[in-house]
Amino acid sequence: MPVAEIHLIEGYSDTEKTRLGRAVTDAIRFVVPAAPEAITVMLHERKPGQYMRGGTHRSPAPALPDPALIVRQYLDAMEARDLDAARAFLADGFTMTFPGAAPMTTLDALIAWSKPRYAFVRKSYDGTEAFQGAEGAVVYTRGTLSGEWPDGTAFEGIRFIDRFEVTGGKITRQDVWNDIAEVKEHP
Amino acid sequence: MPVAEIHLIEGYSDTEKTRLGRAVTDAIRFVVPAAPEAITVMLHERKPGQYMRGGTHRSPAPALPDPALIVRQYLDAMEARDLDAARAFLADGFTMTFPGAAPMTTLDALIAWSKPRYAFVRKSYDGTEAFQGAEGAVVYTRGTLSGEWPDGTAFEGIRFIDRFEVTGGKITRQDVWNDIAEVKEHP
Amino acid sequence: MPVAEIHLIEGYSDTEKTRLGRAVTDAIRFVVPAAPEAITVMLHERKPGQYMRGGTHRSPAPALPDPALIVRQYLDAMEARDLDAARAFLADGFTMTFPGAAPMTTLDALIAWSKPRYAFVRKSYDGTEAFQGAEGAVVYTRGTLSGEWPDGTAFEGIRFIDRFEVTGGKITRQDVWNDIAEVKEHP
Amino acid sequence: MPVAEIHLIEGYSDTEKTRLGRAVTDAIRFVVPAAPEAITVMLHERKPGQYMRGGTHRSPAPALPDPALIVRQYLDAMEARDLDAARAFLADGFTMTFPGAAPMTTLDALIAWSKPRYAFVRKSYDGTEAFQGAEGAVVYTRGTLSGEWPDGTAFEGIRFIDRFEVTGGKITRQDVWNDIAEVKEHP
Amino acid sequence: MPVAEIHLIEGYSDTEKTRLGRAVTDAIRFVVPAAPEAITVMLHERKPGQYMRGGTHRSPAPALPDPALIVRQYLDAMEARDLDAARAFLADGFTMTFPGAAPMTTLDALIAWSKPRYAFVRKSYDGTEAFQGAEGAVVYTRGTLSGEWPDGTAFEGIRFIDRFEVTGGKITRQDVWNDIAEVKEHP
Amino acid sequence: MPVAEIHLIEGYSDTEKTRLGRAVTDAIRFVVPAAPEAITVMLHERKPGQYMRGGTHRSPAPALPDPALIVRQYLDAMEARDLDAARAFLADGFTMTFPGAAPMTTLDALIAWSKPRYAFVRKSYDGTEAFQGAEGAVVYTRGTLSGEWPDGTAFEGIRFIDRFEVTGGKITRQDVWNDIAEVKEHP
Repeated sequence: MPVAEIHLIEGYSDTEKTRLGRAVTDAIRFVVPAAPEAITVMLHERKPGQYMRGGTHRSPAPALPDPALIVRQYLDAMEARDLDAARAFLADGFTMTFPGAAPMTTLDALIAWSKPRYAFVRKSYDGTEAFQGAEGAVVYTRGTLSGEWPDGTAFEGIRFIDRFEVTGGKITRQDVWNDIAEVKEHP
Repeated sequence: MPVAEIHLIEGYSDTEKTRLGRAVTDAIRFVVPAAPEAITVMLHERKPGQYMRGGTHRSPAPALPDPALIVRQYLDAMEARDLDAARAFLADGFTMTFPGAAPMTTLDALIAWSKPRYAFVRKSYDGTEAFQGAEGAVVYTRGTLSGEWPDGTAFEGIRFIDRFEVTGGKITRQDVWNDIAEVKEHP
Repeated sequence: MPVAEIHLIEGYSDTEKTRLGRAVTDAIRFVVPAAPEAITVMLHERKPGQYMRGGTHRSPAPALPDPALIVRQYLDAMEARDLDAARAFLADGFTMTFPGAAPMTTLDALIAWSKPRYAFVRKSYDGTEAFQGAEGAVVYTRGTLSGEWPDGTAFEGIRFIDRFEVTGGKITRQDVWNDIAEVKEHP
Repeated sequence: MPVAEIHLIEGYSDTEKTRLGRAVTDAIRFVVPAAPEAITVMLHERKPGQYMRGGTHRSPAPALPDPALIVRQYLDAMEARDLDAARAFLADGFTMTFPGAAPMTTLDALIAWSKPRYAFVRKSYDGTEAFQGAEGAVVYTRGTLSGEWPDGTAFEGIRFIDRFEVTGGKITRQDVWNDIAEVKEHP
Repeated sequence: MPVAEIHLIEGYSDTEKTRLGRAVTDAIRFVVPAAPEAITVMLHERKPGQYMRGGTHRSPAPALPDPALIVRQYLDAMEARDLDAARAFLADGFTMTFPGAAPMTTLDALIAWSKPRYAFVRKSYDGTEAFQGAEGAVVYTRGTLSGEWPDGTAFEGIRFIDRFEVTGGKITRQDVWNDIAEVKEHP
Repeated sequence: MPVAEIHLIEGYSDTEKTRLGRAVTDAIRFVVPAAPEAITVMLHERKPGQYMRGGTHRSPAPALPDPALIVRQYLDAMEARDLDAARAFLADGFTMTFPGAAPMTTLDALIAWSKPRYAFVRKSYDGTEAFQGAEGAVVYTRGTLSGEWPDGTAFEGIRFIDRFEVTGGKITRQDVWNDIAEVKEHP
């Protein structure tokens, strides 16, 4: 206990059902302090002919993609400076906010802004967390940055955290915090 | 569709059931792009005499408190410099990490560390997000800082984000990122 | 088999739940030729705090009144020539169609139209049937008419059938068929 | 809400399940004034090996045929004067009652009775309604008649309503009301 | 897993529901080798107004009494030679079979038969098992006998087993096996 | 009523599901005096991807074999003196207790013990009952013995009852009671 029964239209993949089952398990654990072993989730899949709303059969909407995966692929593409690939993950109206910068809306603006700040940067991840927000999905990823300053000296171990909003499989917003200024000030 | 039925032992308050229902609704929305209006959650509450696991009746464990509320009360107590109240929210083994500082384990250490950095600081919140993590609950809260530097000049609008881990109703970990160094460097 | 489980918000009276259970039983019998004894209906009533749609608790809408009862009360009021009482059962936009008459919209028009046809009429009922139609409820009631012709001679045993549409507890339409003309032609 | 779960033995066609789902939806709408969009019906089909009553597995009884379809096919056959086809829809013990006639039990009697009344008649349908009655299914169909009187003059727009009882896929009773006498009296 | 949901009419005591829950748990364990901890039983109690079979509400039949308790009370009354009390547990048509005796139908016959065999006997129980048989409940109880032979010498540790059939709360049949003859032959 | 829904992981054979359904039906009949016809059992089988405990999918454990069948096969092998076949049904630590004998742990000991008692023995069965006990399954089988004494004279109609404990498909314990001594004493 608790036991959750989820009735949904047939048509989701095993991976999608696993994601759903885990999200529901976590939702229960968020409120009820049951041992995970005691939380049961059962999916009842209905064929379209076995389900009606308002007297009308329905088709299943395609599952939302895993937002944590989308964010990671975007960040990997950025790190590889594959801007076309990265851009494909962004929604119309995307905005991003970096420490000490006004909000930017294009990757080109980001590249231009970062040039005087560091030659390149790589992310090492300590954790990624994704969940449903008020509008769409929210993804947090945190860890440390390494790379080179414009003068060619290396840096590493600088803490960062990024927050993403993902709607309909596209990133609509990125907010970035890190200790780069702190490190530059007190190297 | 989907329709979720949650069977749980009777004994949770309406507020706790609302939290559970919303968490389950969000868990479904995280994977299935159904209109919120189409997501139904039904709670079936069983009296202890109506429920058995392994042939034994069970009692409901008290619900976990709302971790977002715990974090907010802790931050309010810190802002009011009511260290005793703040301390009551912390678990044994609590650690906190601030920009440019080694991890600290006591509020006194934090106070000492912050003294040369700012006279006082107030948080204005843009958003708080709480969800179940791998171990316990995770709370993110973000917004802007205002306050006074040690020299008495005021500051405001400095972005921050705090990440908390909450287990069994107590805060076990706090990680802080903000733009204070950025602002000091480029005021 | 079949077994029907109906989940609804708590707040309906025992009479209303009986009406619901019988309607569902009949719906099943309409398609599946199970012995009535083998058709089980179970109502699961959820308190508002045990039910959410779209993350929001809901209140139960008051049950629709029994349309067969409304029709019968209307017909009884008409028979007693209590026009005020009868009028209270009619919706705005009510229309009625009688054999050989253009559609009428007021009870006064009906009274005027019937005066040369019969002095008074009484209904004896053989059967009443009510069910959900495309828009609202539909009620059929049939039986025989007795009364007096304008010349004071009595009549009886004249077949009739009335069809009513009832929406939101008010009668929106009445259609009448009977053998009065047949009887007058071939007394 | 409400949410209906119907458990039945596997073996019904999609069309039969749609009929069942709609009948249950209408049964709920008959009592609970929910928006159709908010009424969910879920069918859980059990294979014979997944279902037992009294410790014995059961086989599904064939679904009852759609009584509205049976009635319409019978009326079409009558209109085409295909008496053999029409007769196939009638149960043993079938009786029919027409305005001004004693109950009849054979189509031949009906033909003989109608000969002096009209040369032929065609039905134009305004509506057909079918539902479960106390014993079997009940079908109402209404609209207008057109055709020719015995003297060769045409008529049209004469209101009619037929009531049928259908048990085990056969028509057991037909009751007819119409305005033919009214029209003849006041042409 | 498995999870059992039992829907029953409200009106059973907590003790009766516990008996039911344990019997269902054991029924599952009899076929599925799940750890007891993983077997969940949930009772859904319906008020009479929430349940219909064949369109008719039903009342709960009183629970059957615990047959193991009935048997034990009967055996205790016999041991105390309280024949009136013992007789109250017996159904009409009760028969009992003891080693080396023709079937008997009255307690008086039993007393007469046992007189030359032992002065008195006491049962020490090693185990009692009760379950549903083909007709009614079946109870087995086994252990050892102690007492005195007619000559006044004591005996003890003689194995016995009794089988009872209990229908409608009354004992209909008792079959007894023991090692009394074995012990007498090879003391 | 009652209606039992059993949710289990897909993977059990029809025979195993029938055994489960009957055991659950009997468990209900043991407490609730419903007519068998009124007791409905529905199995909901979940594919591994449709079921999670603790956020982890599970595989079904193989069903336990029918203990009554195991016991019967063991007794048949013993009667045929096929000791290898009989031994295959016994668990490590098997013990058996016969009238007038100390507990034995091997079939060879049993054969040696029985030799002076009877030349051979055959069982005629009146009834076999199997159910879940505290630890494993329990099987009772009873009836009459026939055979030959060591001196070649025949016997028959001697009552017996055997009790078996079966765990994990192997017999762990056999307890035997019969009237052999009674018959020898009072032939």
